Amino acid sequence: MAEPSTAFVADVFARDCASRAVFDDVTSKWASLALLALLEGRTRFNALRRRVDGVSEKMLSQNLRTLESDGLVVRDVIDVIPARVEYELTPLGREVAGHLRALADVLETAVAR
Amino acid sequence: MAEPSTAFVADVFARDCASRAVFDDVTSKWASLALLALLEGRTRFNALRRRVDGVSEKMLSQNLRTLESDGLVVRDVIDVIPARVEYELTPLGREVAGHLRALADVLETAVAR
Repeated sequence: MAEPSTAFVADVFARDCASRAVFDDVTSKWASLALLALLEGRTRFNALRRRVDGVSEKMLSQNLRTLESDGLVVRDVIDVIPARVEYELTPLGREVAGHLRALADVLETAVAR
Repeated sequence: MAEPSTAFVADVFARDCASRAVFDDVTSKWASLALLALLEGRTRFNALRRRVDGVSEKMLSQNLRTLESDGLVVRDVIDVIPARVEYELTPLGREVAGHLRALADVLETAVAR
């Protein structure tokens, strides 16, 4: 009889599962919109702030740091004078943002009806 | 020359757009998990509460009412003694929950690697 698999199974329903923590991060108010904005391409902080109507500088920075630690966003410092900072999605970030975009499209269509 | 379209265009980036309000509702912590749980079928309140590990009775009720007013969930009162209450996704709710499920699958896979 095959050995019972002891592979780790992630489950967003389980409050202590790491996937629940990242799911909460990704679906939080400003992080979800920052992901959608970054789906439109590599972006500088102030451009992101203008795109995500209503976000404060503090909340945007905080959420970008969370998304970076979750491996969904990378922060690039461009070596020019003065230094320039740009944000970009990682491949995993693009996959996540793609599902959020599909969700937003459904809601935008439903609301516009 | 064609008349410029004056059709209403919804945009989740715009803070005052109705789609932003529903996007915020759907991606909020407990509502998103309740939608995922209801994707598994018509469910009673206590079963939902057990499925969404960590949610309080008050938060679950509050989020279900929000999802009902957004047209994503329906509350059915079964005419038996004692009366039974069940919750179910609407077609729009199923479409939204499907995208949240795809998002959760990506994160569960990434975390389990």
